[in-house]
Amino acid sequence: MSGQPTWVGEENVALLTDLYQLTMMQAYLEEGLEGEAAFSLFVRRLPPQRNFLLACGLDDALDYLERLHFTDDALAYLSSLHLFSDGFLRRLRDMRFGGDVHAVPEGTPIFAAEPILEVVAPLPVAQLVETAVMNQVHLQIVAASKAARVVAAARGRTVVDFGLRRIHGADAGLKVARAAFVAGVDATSNVLAGKLYGIPVAGTMAHSYVQAHDAQLDAFRAFARVYPRTTLLVDTYDTLAGVRDVVRLARELGPAFQVRALRLDSGDLLALSRQARRILDEAGLQKVELFASGGLDEHAVDRLVRAGAPIAGFGVGTAMGVSDDAPTVDIAYKLVSYAGRGRMKLSPGKALLPGRKQVFRVEHDGRAERDVLAGHGEAQPGRPLLAQVMAGGRRLFPRPDLATLRARAREELGRLPGRLLGLAPATPPYPVEVSAGLGAQRDELAASLAGPKVR
Amino acid sequence: MSGQPTWVGEENVALLTDLYQLTMMQAYLEEGLEGEAAFSLFVRRLPPQRNFLLACGLDDALDYLERLHFTDDALAYLSSLHLFSDGFLRRLRDMRFGGDVHAVPEGTPIFAAEPILEVVAPLPVAQLVETAVMNQVHLQIVAASKAARVVAAARGRTVVDFGLRRIHGADAGLKVARAAFVAGVDATSNVLAGKLYGIPVAGTMAHSYVQAHDAQLDAFRAFARVYPRTTLLVDTYDTLAGVRDVVRLARELGPAFQVRALRLDSGDLLALSRQARRILDEAGLQKVELFASGGLDEHAVDRLVRAGAPIAGFGVGTAMGVSDDAPTVDIAYKLVSYAGRGRMKLSPGKALLPGRKQVFRVEHDGRAERDVLAGHGEAQPGRPLLAQVMAGGRRLFPRPDLATLRARAREELGRLPGRLLGLAPATPPYPVEVSAGLGAQRDELAASLAGPKVR
Repeated sequence: MSGQPTWVGEENVALLTDLYQLTMMQAYLEEGLEGEAAFSLFVRRLPPQRNFLLACGLDDALDYLERLHFTDDALAYLSSLHLFSDGFLRRLRDMRFGGDVHAVPEGTPIFAAEPILEVVAPLPVAQLVETAVMNQVHLQIVAASKAARVVAAARGRTVVDFGLRRIHGADAGLKVARAAFVAGVDATSNVLAGKLYGIPVAGTMAHSYVQAHDAQLDAFRAFARVYPRTTLLVDTYDTLAGVRDVVRLARELGPAFQVRALRLDSGDLLALSRQARRILDEAGLQKVELFASGGLDEHAVDRLVRAGAPIAGFGVGTAMGVSDDAPTVDIAYKLVSYAGRGRMKLSPGKALLPGRKQVFRVEHDGRAERDVLAGHGEAQPGRPLLAQVMAGGRRLFPRPDLATLRARAREELGRLPGRLLGLAPATPPYPVEVSAGLGAQRDELAASLAGPKVR
Repeated sequence: MSGQPTWVGEENVALLTDLYQLTMMQAYLEEGLEGEAAFSLFVRRLPPQRNFLLACGLDDALDYLERLHFTDDALAYLSSLHLFSDGFLRRLRDMRFGGDVHAVPEGTPIFAAEPILEVVAPLPVAQLVETAVMNQVHLQIVAASKAARVVAAARGRTVVDFGLRRIHGADAGLKVARAAFVAGVDATSNVLAGKLYGIPVAGTMAHSYVQAHDAQLDAFRAFARVYPRTTLLVDTYDTLAGVRDVVRLARELGPAFQVRALRLDSGDLLALSRQARRILDEAGLQKVELFASGGLDEHAVDRLVRAGAPIAGFGVGTAMGVSDDAPTVDIAYKLVSYAGRGRMKLSPGKALLPGRKQVFRVEHDGRAERDVLAGHGEAQPGRPLLAQVMAGGRRLFPRPDLATLRARAREELGRLPGRLLGLAPATPPYPVEVSAGLGAQRDELAASLAGPKVR
């Protein structure tokens, strides 16, 4: 890994936020509301069809918190809005994030209502960081969770991220490659993600390469000369004619033929892969593998694998890159305590549990049985998932190695009940219980808020 | 506009690409295939439910083409992959984009198969730029096209982009704000988009602000003291109780009460807006407007507006920010001619029209009737949509002003047949015809490619 991606210019990092974070911040400071606040980042409900989500993106959130500062340029823009006092802008100039963060490690499966990350800091600062933290963590949870499904469907076959061209922008192109790798994807076509994250890069040829030659066989011959152990794309004109051109090339080259795989990118991939396999086998090219791509998602991969398609690997692009069935999750960053008291909102469909929390994963014989959502500091059986990762604005651990996160995801996913790892909704869903203590705290606070004070 | 967003660090711009662009490029150079190539960027088919797409993102594509170069750092990474020769890496070091670009202006409605952008350059370079150009243009077409629907549904009411927290990453956060503004959205909550693009920024308060106070009325009073002409969020505990707290504040403050609007963010927005309106009117607060948000999309906005909800503006976030019903479009960048000859592929479902093209929009009384897809240089009745925007790697026009693009989008959308501007699929869909000349060229080339040469 040779550096951290600049997902927003250093000079602009503090302005990647919603305006109301800044207007609220100024109001908090004018009112002297600078007490310690705790905000909790969690997903209200899982998307339909999803049995779990995979925590991801923490490193980029911490990166943001470490870098957060207002430059003169940023302050000059804010001043131009005529919303902010000079005193407030001076406070912003000196402001840094000096709070604590507790979080679930990247690569851990999570469920609805469970805190993924908790920020504890003076209210104005804890408020300010909401937008950028959510933007980064949301994206990577969405991407890792989708990729985990594709990887599960591939059942050990290679999966390569081909999404960059239709992923939403440059930052997501990098973060999706990162999250997908953590979730078990093997490689990416994104060269910059390879450079910045050390993810293996992969790729072969496009139709245009074939089209640029007068004959397909010329294209294959030329490409194999430069890259003897390459993958050739065979569907530009007619897939099986392409396979036969590869066989011709193999006869031409004899022992010098080292092509490793053919890529099928359109048509009925099951039927074509079987026919292509037969043609290759009959030509003695058993070693040449088949690689499939072209509009694949986890369901298409699952169908091909279940049907026994002779396909060794899958290039999965757009559907995984934007998580097409669930491009967003209902993530929220909510004030759960201020000045030592629990806080909650009661808005319909958006009520939440007050106070800082811990999640306990109760396991039996290495298999997760249920989670218990408890108050921070409450003792419960099971493995606590949140740990402190930042104190006083400084990381407590070095930047994690992606291979480590990937291994953790693999192990953690392996501990889930098997019914959660299929593509269909699990019956029953994974149980997440609220501890008696936390439940009582919620009911008490809800009663007090519904009382005369706010009427 | 005080600067251009750094959507990927200057030092990394050339690596934001798929590996195969570089492997193909090296092969082209080794073979001496450096003739002039034309690539066409187009959408194969419209997403279901969509009657048109809005061209957007050209400026960022041109920005990329102008900045494209390989730094020593980038070349060192490529060298580490053991795929590229020293000679090739030296060629990359000197490589710049020196080609021509023809494009449909941002803010123009486009249809399936129509070229949005054509790149003419030596084959290796024209190939290389595919990934980044697609990444940027695809995102903004998706975003602008979705936003145009929300704006149409709002029928003149204010629409504000609230999407940043769940938009996919920082780059998309900026580009979606840009594209949405071009498509007619009025403002954004994204402060950095305000700074970089000059888009009006908007925002008020969050639930956490109310929760941080012991009583909701205290929160309203404090916020209105700092921002007298603000919008107050009323649904933290109970929407109508929140509205009554605003009425209390108005009585307290008398003529000093200048609050402009209340924001409803949950529940049955139609019923609540009517009840809130009644409470406000009965209190003599006719001037206080209602603003709605909370999981809105174009359909929800449409229902509220059709039902006559007394709502003056909408904050639309996640659904617009990721274009939830169509987070991607089937965009492609395909070789259409090389060394003076038309090229096409015949892959099932992916066949295309050969050669450079022009799109003519045939209008009658200022209303578009049909488009004609013709060969480049072919004369047809109607208004040609593509114009040259870059020659020899240099822009032919200054960077466009967003207000100009926004005005163009408004005018161009106004020229579409009315049936295209509703949310339901238009019957009949907008007709796009292929000129006789282009059709003959396609048939001739398809016959030659299906012939013995590639069998």
